Amino acid sequence: MINEKKFVAVIGGWQPTPQEAKLAETVGRELARRGAILVCGGLGGVMEAACLGASSEGGITIGILPGDNRQAANPYVQIPIVTGLGFARNIIVVKSAQAVIAIGGSYGTLSEISHALQSGIPVIGLNTWSLSRGGQQDNSIILAQSPAEAVNKALSLITN
Amino acid sequence: MINEKKFVAVIGGWQPTPQEAKLAETVGRELARRGAILVCGGLGGVMEAACLGASSEGGITIGILPGDNRQAANPYVQIPIVTGLGFARNIIVVKSAQAVIAIGGSYGTLSEISHALQSGIPVIGLNTWSLSRGGQQDNSIILAQSPAEAVNKALSLITN
Amino acid sequence: MINEKKFVAVIGGWQPTPQEAKLAETVGRELARRGAILVCGGLGGVMEAACLGASSEGGITIGILPGDNRQAANPYVQIPIVTGLGFARNIIVVKSAQAVIAIGGSYGTLSEISHALQSGIPVIGLNTWSLSRGGQQDNSIILAQSPAEAVNKALSLITN
Amino acid sequence: MINEKKFVAVIGGWQPTPQEAKLAETVGRELARRGAILVCGGLGGVMEAACLGASSEGGITIGILPGDNRQAANPYVQIPIVTGLGFARNIIVVKSAQAVIAIGGSYGTLSEISHALQSGIPVIGLNTWSLSRGGQQDNSIILAQSPAEAVNKALSLITN
Repeated sequence: MINEKKFVAVIGGWQPTPQEAKLAETVGRELARRGAILVCGGLGGVMEAACLGASSEGGITIGILPGDNRQAANPYVQIPIVTGLGFARNIIVVKSAQAVIAIGGSYGTLSEISHALQSGIPVIGLNTWSLSRGGQQDNSIILAQSPAEAVNKALSLITN
Repeated sequence: MINEKKFVAVIGGWQPTPQEAKLAETVGRELARRGAILVCGGLGGVMEAACLGASSEGGITIGILPGDNRQAANPYVQIPIVTGLGFARNIIVVKSAQAVIAIGGSYGTLSEISHALQSGIPVIGLNTWSLSRGGQQDNSIILAQSPAEAVNKALSLITN
Repeated sequence: MINEKKFVAVIGGWQPTPQEAKLAETVGRELARRGAILVCGGLGGVMEAACLGASSEGGITIGILPGDNRQAANPYVQIPIVTGLGFARNIIVVKSAQAVIAIGGSYGTLSEISHALQSGIPVIGLNTWSLSRGGQQDNSIILAQSPAEAVNKALSLITN
Repeated sequence: MINEKKFVAVIGGWQPTPQEAKLAETVGRELARRGAILVCGGLGGVMEAACLGASSEGGITIGILPGDNRQAANPYVQIPIVTGLGFARNIIVVKSAQAVIAIGGSYGTLSEISHALQSGIPVIGLNTWSLSRGGQQDNSIILAQSPAEAVNKALSLITN
């Protein structure tokens, strides 16, 4: 059954650097090879690159869209979810995943990282935000040095 | 590509009559046979019966869950979407579909019918609510007499 | 303390008939005279007429806005709540009230009526939707013949 | 009119240190003295301390609640907004304000900071998160050393 598959969100900005886009595509490809289902925000940039990668390996891609228009999904989204909730859809992206891989990203990505950590969903970071509080580094974001390492860590942390 | 497939929501209560459950299962089965993807609220009753029907024909089922727990999905949901939004997830159920089939149901179902009509998404009704305003019947809910007719009408009304 | 005051939502369309607008203004005025706080969707039509009425009697008005712009509130909203959630804000309008008065309205109003009934919040109707299911009239919407009667019924049904 | 008043959100955790609670109370008091309306998440900890401070100076307090129960609001909330949206209400807290003051806090607070920065709403920080990206400090959170300075900066940054 498909629902024994693992669901992993890939989050990041819609204006990635070429390097970030490449990371996202490789993460998407690797997730599909490993049989995981990709969840993302459904739009361009990191989201599209990850969906492209997953699709190229026959993987399933879910896009949780902020607007009212399913046509706004990037062309590699197979399952568009139309929320009409604006940025509040960010919380659904992470809650629908069992682990999150963050690649670069701006404040929207940071909100997704925050919501994931708040919900106890593991977050793996590739060139993304780092956090500190009261002068103390917060190490909740699990660092990875490569797409393969990010996917390995994400999948190994899914237990439920 | 999967996203050329048609997405149809099946809505209805979690305490259906046996007849309503049977209608829902047949609708789910027929949607799967016709290659459509089933969207629902992911829980029991009409939602579960429709997912059971679709699954039995190899169809794809999406459950937009109100709570925070993916395990709350009925066993026939293949793609659980975890919103944590409570009943506000109702609006996502209908917006993620291109047509809606309503079977029986209570006020939650009525809210979904309303949101669909508000968004211009066609609603097909099987033994469900009927509406009037100022003493005038509102005929926006398209009546069907059988699951096959409901599915036919739903699929034929999807143009985008 | 203000929070011992009663919160009543006034719901209805943004394109009311002149008679509906007049009803809404009178309801708003009467709610303010009785010391209740008005909750609404914050935009024009019935919402604006009700806020105008309440403001003219020194009442407090809350507008739960669908968009991202507080300036979209009608000029009689004193407390704009900015949700960015689109029509999903409808559910917040009714949940934030202890009773709901529906005046005319279209499918958005019907969604609010549905969400209120689903949550056990009493709904008083003035020239609004009527519902039936399986050929049986549903009498959950409490009918009123005048603004004063609607306000009386709404306030008397608030117990929590 | 009340809606010429300024709306400022105070965000922070529900388990503050005694020092953070004291900061929040002083911020609330100072906002009320300056005629601003306090917006918060409506629950305990920093939220309650800020509402207590504002109430003690006759200020108006708005609590955007995550659950379905208005009684969950802290006793100093005058305007409870009942969302039923869980943590997705965080985004409404910040969008309903024209400036945000963050005091301490955990991942929920970080999500609010992120949503505010994403929406272009200024964030003033008192002993809260600090952010960096790609080894570069992000200075979007405006630092303050005292409640008075935080309130001054928040009010001076509201232009709309």
